[in-house]
Amino acid sequence: MREPPPCQLPPRVERLRALMTDQSIDAIVCLKPENTFYLSGFNPIIYSHPAIVVVTLDHDPILLVFALRGQHARASAWVTDIRLFGTWSDIETLAPDWKEALMIILTSLRASGKTIGLEEGFIPVAQSRNLAEILPQAKFVDVSPFIDQCRLVKDPDEIKNARIAARIADVGMDAAFTALARAGSTERDVAIASTNAMNQYWAENYGDDVEICGFGSLEGGQHNGLAAWVLSGPRKSYACDNPTTRVPEPGETVSVFVWTVANGMHAELERTVCVGPVAEVEQRAIMDILEIRAKVDARMRPGIPVSELYEIAKKGFEAKGYGSIIPGRIGHAIGLGPHENASISATSPVILEPGMILTLEPHILIPDVCGTQFSDTILITETGREYLTRFSRGYLTVN
Amino acid sequence: MREPPPCQLPPRVERLRALMTDQSIDAIVCLKPENTFYLSGFNPIIYSHPAIVVVTLDHDPILLVFALRGQHARASAWVTDIRLFGTWSDIETLAPDWKEALMIILTSLRASGKTIGLEEGFIPVAQSRNLAEILPQAKFVDVSPFIDQCRLVKDPDEIKNARIAARIADVGMDAAFTALARAGSTERDVAIASTNAMNQYWAENYGDDVEICGFGSLEGGQHNGLAAWVLSGPRKSYACDNPTTRVPEPGETVSVFVWTVANGMHAELERTVCVGPVAEVEQRAIMDILEIRAKVDARMRPGIPVSELYEIAKKGFEAKGYGSIIPGRIGHAIGLGPHENASISATSPVILEPGMILTLEPHILIPDVCGTQFSDTILITETGREYLTRFSRGYLTVN
Repeated sequence: MREPPPCQLPPRVERLRALMTDQSIDAIVCLKPENTFYLSGFNPIIYSHPAIVVVTLDHDPILLVFALRGQHARASAWVTDIRLFGTWSDIETLAPDWKEALMIILTSLRASGKTIGLEEGFIPVAQSRNLAEILPQAKFVDVSPFIDQCRLVKDPDEIKNARIAARIADVGMDAAFTALARAGSTERDVAIASTNAMNQYWAENYGDDVEICGFGSLEGGQHNGLAAWVLSGPRKSYACDNPTTRVPEPGETVSVFVWTVANGMHAELERTVCVGPVAEVEQRAIMDILEIRAKVDARMRPGIPVSELYEIAKKGFEAKGYGSIIPGRIGHAIGLGPHENASISATSPVILEPGMILTLEPHILIPDVCGTQFSDTILITETGREYLTRFSRGYLTVN
Repeated sequence: MREPPPCQLPPRVERLRALMTDQSIDAIVCLKPENTFYLSGFNPIIYSHPAIVVVTLDHDPILLVFALRGQHARASAWVTDIRLFGTWSDIETLAPDWKEALMIILTSLRASGKTIGLEEGFIPVAQSRNLAEILPQAKFVDVSPFIDQCRLVKDPDEIKNARIAARIADVGMDAAFTALARAGSTERDVAIASTNAMNQYWAENYGDDVEICGFGSLEGGQHNGLAAWVLSGPRKSYACDNPTTRVPEPGETVSVFVWTVANGMHAELERTVCVGPVAEVEQRAIMDILEIRAKVDARMRPGIPVSELYEIAKKGFEAKGYGSIIPGRIGHAIGLGPHENASISATSPVILEPGMILTLEPHILIPDVCGTQFSDTILITETGREYLTRFSRGYLTVN
């Protein structure tokens, strides 16, 4: 086969290679949808056939996809070395089966008998057993933690996409707020108004270089990742549920959740809104959480351990009388996953660096008493932090 | 802890128990979102904390969820024995970690040292290693194939939900068709019109007993599973992609894909539509595929091997001059996954039974020449088959 032209590598590939060198890993074989997109630029949306990326120290990343996806991959990946497996139409492929095709690639890279990194936090037992069978000389090691670590600091292309996702989320929250203010709106009405506004905004303001699909699972695909859901009154304690036909009543609070994606990068924007004047316990919870958030926010800058952010929130919960309901975490990394692995928690080893993107979301949640849900998507900059989601962060009321 | 009231078990639990008895499996531990919903009725949508179901022969299925999800689980699962793990607010749980909580449950069921079935087609290597550590006496076996087999024949509640999903898909295709007929509509316009119509139809016609969320992954969630995408002209060969700003031109064909879900059960409805008169090669491909589909359709009834359906399609492709582009499969099982594991292929061992739901979708796809995409969701009945998706199956043109 003719050697493909070399590709323009984003900085993350060099970061990952540095980790590989550190750990004496010769090749990484990625199968997790978020990670294969991260290292190739290709999202087939449907993953019932895997998309696979092979990273080595001395060869451009190689993308291996099902025959049917070849044309799409060539049109959208930044990786230029794309190989095919499977049987479809009259398309020539390396092998009918992805495992066999992968063995051919690793052999040609002289990596088949070396140390191969697998995502053991994702790859199913049966697949890993198959790989061990076809690569009997290889030594396998877990690279899930290294890829997660690599993903913590975002590349410029990722930050650009996160800004777009956040902009769309602002539009979604605005539409939800407007719909909530209309008398008789159900939870579903609010969620649908939000989703439709986000889709329209995307269609009217972005070209074909902005995709809003998410990442699929082994059995399905996420064709549209612009989502909103709504929990009113006592339903706030569910934290996540399909919106219902329930109409929020005057005096209740309503939590609105907006999750978006642009070219794989996610944003999250969540607000609790009062329907007219609300009970004092709810009002106080909102005032308290806004104050706690402001205190944490003031320390968000490079060099600060996220465990310190957690401690600030914890002290705030205790000082305000919520010592018995302190959440286990008050935010998380966000990017190719809406919930990435790193948490803002007491035990996290993460220290803030420019390029990290986190949600800040301590919540006060006492079932049947009160519930607050405020979350923003926040970029750590060279000198501090920047809110990517810009919707009002104050006390919100509709009448 | 007080013993929960016994729950009303759907037939699938007994089918699975029969497979367990056959294979001498004492307990099954499910972690795959589709399967935990299948065996409990609970979909938390977000799976960054796992939802786990334990099935044994002599105890009702047990659902183990993160503390924050307990109230939601109790409100929506048919399983009544719900246990909690994790640290959240002041909620009491079995253990801070799901693995420890699971060990406590399996020990109380006297199953911790016995034969335990895991979904090795799904469970990540790292998780399975953790389980081996906490259950050193257990013997683990792979139950992915048994659960897949169990899922092939749908229960009455699942068929009811698949009908709802199919009804919504019909509405989505109808809206896409109408939007496509409007001059100047882009691929995105058509997809958004379809998605919005489906959401509105759901909101107006179904109560809170019908949810349209899908199943999440380890990092994210699928809050809304009503999806449409559109591939026009040469883009048909991508098979799946985010819709673009491209306006289909007169003389082109356009493939519209609608995927829906109702209470976890999916439907798929796909059509290729001609924009005015099209080139003869495209026209002929559509006529040919409709004829091939009709021939396969005529044999869809209990007792027929799906490999025979594939052979009928294959002969049709050969007879019509498409012998070099025969697809590897012409349909697949559909249910809790839009793409379930069983395929209508040459080598499938599946024999049609009442209650199976399949897509029928042989496609003629020659990049830059022609492409057809017709798919329906079809239930096998006692005497034949029933199209759950009802949109016109003939030659479709907009002007």
